Amino acid sequence: MEITRSNLTEKLEEIAEAIDQATFLAVDGEFTGLDKPDCSHSAPFDTAKERYFKLKEGSLEFLMIQFGVCAFKFKEDTQSYEARPFNFYVFPRPYTRQAPDKRFLCQSSSIDFLVQQGFDFNKLFREGIPFLMPTEEDVMRESLAGKHQAFSKFSSPAFVSPDGADMGPGKGPVQIPDEQKDFIAGVCNKISSFIETSESEVLQLAPCNGFQRKLIYQTIRTKFSAVHLETKTGEKKDRFIVVTKVASEDDLKKKEKDKQNAEIMELEEAVGFSKVMKLISKSGKLVIGHNMILDVMHMLNDFLCPLPADLEEFKSMVKCCLPRLIDTKFMASTHPLRDVIPNTALGNLQETLEKGPFTPAKVELMEGFSDYQNATDKYHEAGYDAYVTGCMFATMTNYIGNYKKPDPKPAVAPTEAVLKPFMNKLFLMRIADIPYLNLGGPDLEPNRDHVFHLSFPREWKSADINNLFAPYGSIHISWLNDSSAFVSLFKKDNAAVVLKTLAMTQSQYQLVPYNVYKSKAGVASSLMPPPVPEKASSFVPVSTPTPLLTGLKRSAADPAADDDDSDSNESASKKQRSANKDAAPLAAMEEDEIPELVPRSEGDSDKSSNGRGVTNTPQKMFAEPEVW
Amino acid sequence: MEITRSNLTEKLEEIAEAIDQATFLAVDGEFTGLDKPDCSHSAPFDTAKERYFKLKEGSLEFLMIQFGVCAFKFKEDTQSYEARPFNFYVFPRPYTRQAPDKRFLCQSSSIDFLVQQGFDFNKLFREGIPFLMPTEEDVMRESLAGKHQAFSKFSSPAFVSPDGADMGPGKGPVQIPDEQKDFIAGVCNKISSFIETSESEVLQLAPCNGFQRKLIYQTIRTKFSAVHLETKTGEKKDRFIVVTKVASEDDLKKKEKDKQNAEIMELEEAVGFSKVMKLISKSGKLVIGHNMILDVMHMLNDFLCPLPADLEEFKSMVKCCLPRLIDTKFMASTHPLRDVIPNTALGNLQETLEKGPFTPAKVELMEGFSDYQNATDKYHEAGYDAYVTGCMFATMTNYIGNYKKPDPKPAVAPTEAVLKPFMNKLFLMRIADIPYLNLGGPDLEPNRDHVFHLSFPREWKSADINNLFAPYGSIHISWLNDSSAFVSLFKKDNAAVVLKTLAMTQSQYQLVPYNVYKSKAGVASSLMPPPVPEKASSFVPVSTPTPLLTGLKRSAADPAADDDDSDSNESASKKQRSANKDAAPLAAMEEDEIPELVPRSEGDSDKSSNGRGVTNTPQKMFAEPEVW
Repeated sequence: MEITRSNLTEKLEEIAEAIDQATFLAVDGEFTGLDKPDCSHSAPFDTAKERYFKLKEGSLEFLMIQFGVCAFKFKEDTQSYEARPFNFYVFPRPYTRQAPDKRFLCQSSSIDFLVQQGFDFNKLFREGIPFLMPTEEDVMRESLAGKHQAFSKFSSPAFVSPDGADMGPGKGPVQIPDEQKDFIAGVCNKISSFIETSESEVLQLAPCNGFQRKLIYQTIRTKFSAVHLETKTGEKKDRFIVVTKVASEDDLKKKEKDKQNAEIMELEEAVGFSKVMKLISKSGKLVIGHNMILDVMHMLNDFLCPLPADLEEFKSMVKCCLPRLIDTKFMASTHPLRDVIPNTALGNLQETLEKGPFTPAKVELMEGFSDYQNATDKYHEAGYDAYVTGCMFATMTNYIGNYKKPDPKPAVAPTEAVLKPFMNKLFLMRIADIPYLNLGGPDLEPNRDHVFHLSFPREWKSADINNLFAPYGSIHISWLNDSSAFVSLFKKDNAAVVLKTLAMTQSQYQLVPYNVYKSKAGVASSLMPPPVPEKASSFVPVSTPTPLLTGLKRSAADPAADDDDSDSNESASKKQRSANKDAAPLAAMEEDEIPELVPRSEGDSDKSSNGRGVTNTPQKMFAEPEVW
Repeated sequence: MEITRSNLTEKLEEIAEAIDQATFLAVDGEFTGLDKPDCSHSAPFDTAKERYFKLKEGSLEFLMIQFGVCAFKFKEDTQSYEARPFNFYVFPRPYTRQAPDKRFLCQSSSIDFLVQQGFDFNKLFREGIPFLMPTEEDVMRESLAGKHQAFSKFSSPAFVSPDGADMGPGKGPVQIPDEQKDFIAGVCNKISSFIETSESEVLQLAPCNGFQRKLIYQTIRTKFSAVHLETKTGEKKDRFIVVTKVASEDDLKKKEKDKQNAEIMELEEAVGFSKVMKLISKSGKLVIGHNMILDVMHMLNDFLCPLPADLEEFKSMVKCCLPRLIDTKFMASTHPLRDVIPNTALGNLQETLEKGPFTPAKVELMEGFSDYQNATDKYHEAGYDAYVTGCMFATMTNYIGNYKKPDPKPAVAPTEAVLKPFMNKLFLMRIADIPYLNLGGPDLEPNRDHVFHLSFPREWKSADINNLFAPYGSIHISWLNDSSAFVSLFKKDNAAVVLKTLAMTQSQYQLVPYNVYKSKAGVASSLMPPPVPEKASSFVPVSTPTPLLTGLKRSAADPAADDDDSDSNESASKKQRSANKDAAPLAAMEEDEIPELVPRSEGDSDKSSNGRGVTNTPQKMFAEPEVW
């Protein structure tokens, strides 16, 4: 069901009911972009802390413009689910003159991708639901209440000194400057003749500025008792005062009351989408997402509370706002499901789960929610992705629940017991050996003795590094900039001998164990991108020449490079360089940075480079996650 | 005439011809936003240097998404103009995989405003013309040439060492890692059987990553001579190799040549809109705009060269890129036109120029450009605004040329002589006493002896300041933050006595002459917004609670504030405060900050707060511009 600002108020109750009755909720978001070029990029040897920092710095200035939530209700009798998908368009249109005028980032490739998928930006900007952070809402409510209360207290509000302070000057009305006196006198004459002679009930004054309006208010209130004043906004956004005749003091009060009610309604609409997010949070229901870490970060940051800098604080924040989360991408890429799921991208996963060994969970779309019945081309519409994610979750839950059971059940309810291994673990993309962010406790700190920090001459390319390590089997290179990289051994046992032979030799390169390098560098510095040359920094953010320079210098000389990543290591290097300056084409970046050895990024279009995926030959990389 | 990426190539010649034949060009741009909240805002007592700095820092991360240029050709015989308006949709969609993936800012109120005007964002994102900075273009051309050249030189490009260096390892092909050997072997078998047995001419390999493609390229080139390889991108943005049988070496070369030509075409399209901007720049024609400073800055910065930090450098840059500029808003707000033009906003100005004392210039839309014939509702479509601006310029030129002449001509050609007083002076909004940025020389440095810097207790409101200055006539308050402001005297002669009486007294406030304050503060610091409290800075840029807090605290206590600017001075103060933290509603900001004493901002919707204007009672403020 599509929800915009024109039907939110009407549908809010239905949404609340769906959430309230749900066994679990599946969610998905669409964004105006994924990452800022000037934030150092996700890398295979990030720690959990580093990755959180990079995502927070690099992703939160983009907007979540579409949000899907699908409420799934498990029915014991039929052993099936009832689904109610909602698709929200969300846009922070300044709803009132007081509402914040938000600035937000867009990423060309993301916008292009959404348009390709048929996303309707005109609808978004016209019909998108506004929202306010709770802090913003509280302030507005308080102030509105105060304003209304103050009016009822004083006959002539213009005389109220806002801070009610007794000290110093500033009481009473503003003195009318000489140059305004004629103007005000003119208005007074107009109004008095309107009261005495005019037939009509309403008089519209000419537009004027705020200061003049204040002068009019304070003057009229003292001179005329039989009129009510209200400021309105014209088509051209010009502001003017409307004068209405009133029969009595009561009539005046009534008119004022109506105005106040209208203002309260307006505020309710301005709070908008935040109400939905609060419903989800308050429900405490199990919330499902596919590769959901960015969704979770935006859900909290945009509508509930700005994210903290510290990862542990973030974890406690999630715990209180969204206490139970399951990431289907993590589920699918973890034993025992991993063994029967070759590719965890949403589309591929859906295909896989329709065939054996899986039995698709029975899911019925409830009446009035049939938009997605037999839909196939709706990928990347948030509501549809949420619906699909929920279905996949149900199917995988059935598989897990029946795993190695003698008497498999037709359906397995998503209980704590069954789902414990996956609870509150968010999938982390492209980290070699930390498959998930552990919201429920400390994160994995895998052994990285087989990883080395290598610095070398700028001329070096991946071939040079490969040759250097040739004797020790194949390696993965994770470029940091054009003269340094992390190198990890496929054959971990060779770590000692590598250290012995390569680390000792003084030569044009220098090799240091990962841990030594980290302890030297310190987290802080390792988070910061290398200093940018004066020249590069003189470019404005939206202009991004650097990636070309780097990305193409190579392919220029390398005709085999029919595209900018015919050697992923290589262009990864160059892209990494450029990423540290300005924007690198995200697509290439994503593809290039995928370690050959990490199977789980394969063909993955989930939140990665807007669907520009790759396929690797699957291979096991990271250590088995905690056993259960 | 509407120009998108689908018809640019076809129409480019016609555009070039129109520019080439033009007597002058009128231009206009539409933007995704106007100013960043965290940049200190335009203020009535900015210097020219400060204003340039603020605009550069605050505006250039937004995009110019629509550009209008209208070519006007003066015809001696008929004493009239022929007009050819072009309306371009511009969007930096990453056209090739190498093209930069730009990030850009949007401002909610600006987007909302454009949508209200009927701007089609879907068309923009689908059909917008891409562009490259000349630096980007050069690099891409060079690299492409290099790549093509290299191919023709070597039979097996995979063996070329990109940097052509002889030192160190890295020559020859990358050694195939063990874990890739099976994969490559499989591909080889597939291809050989394809060559021997298959009927078809073309074989499509399964998608694989860049590193694997490189391995395939280098292996196949050595093993098979009768095939041509090309990498293509699938619907899901996956990359795969297409193998084509070739009859001979020549056939192979021909296929490669076709591929290269396609790549060159692709690059030409990627350069896109920059070609138009280069045509305008190279033509050296007189370029007209209405309130055009932002247009000029974006025209240069987005398509020609990033803007320098220094104002004087900017002036020389403009001189070489757009040597002759005239701003119709400056024209209209300068003697003798100012005396007969009450309001210089585009729409109002157009109305004014249709009546006496003006005689509208005769302008005919050329065949094929009739979209704007009798159009009335097209305001804020860049092409239309450019067309209207040109017409107004022609009309005003006629008026100036005939000013006080005994024998007025039906039309006056826009010659240097007539236009000298307006040449290369860009209108500056809301600076009390510096009406324009002087591109042709040093900027005005008006006497500000009647301006004082006042610091006072936070509780103070404008009323308090007004009362303090009451004995010295009316004042204008330009708030800096909630405890300081610039105060200027309407009666300049009172400066000395104010200094004597107020500056000397030690009390809860402190008064310092403007010049003294500036010399103390130094330009640099006066440019920077005050330090932001920890708490506020913890909000992410897109979240903007502060303006509410401040903007509303006041109206809460001041029932007369039926909106957030019933006292312009007051809310200006609060808004200024919030502006220094995060975003203040631009509309309010614009309106509030307008000094009551400056006539020329009145009802002005040109590039100001997206059409949310105000009307002031006109009064003369700044010193007569240079006489002529």
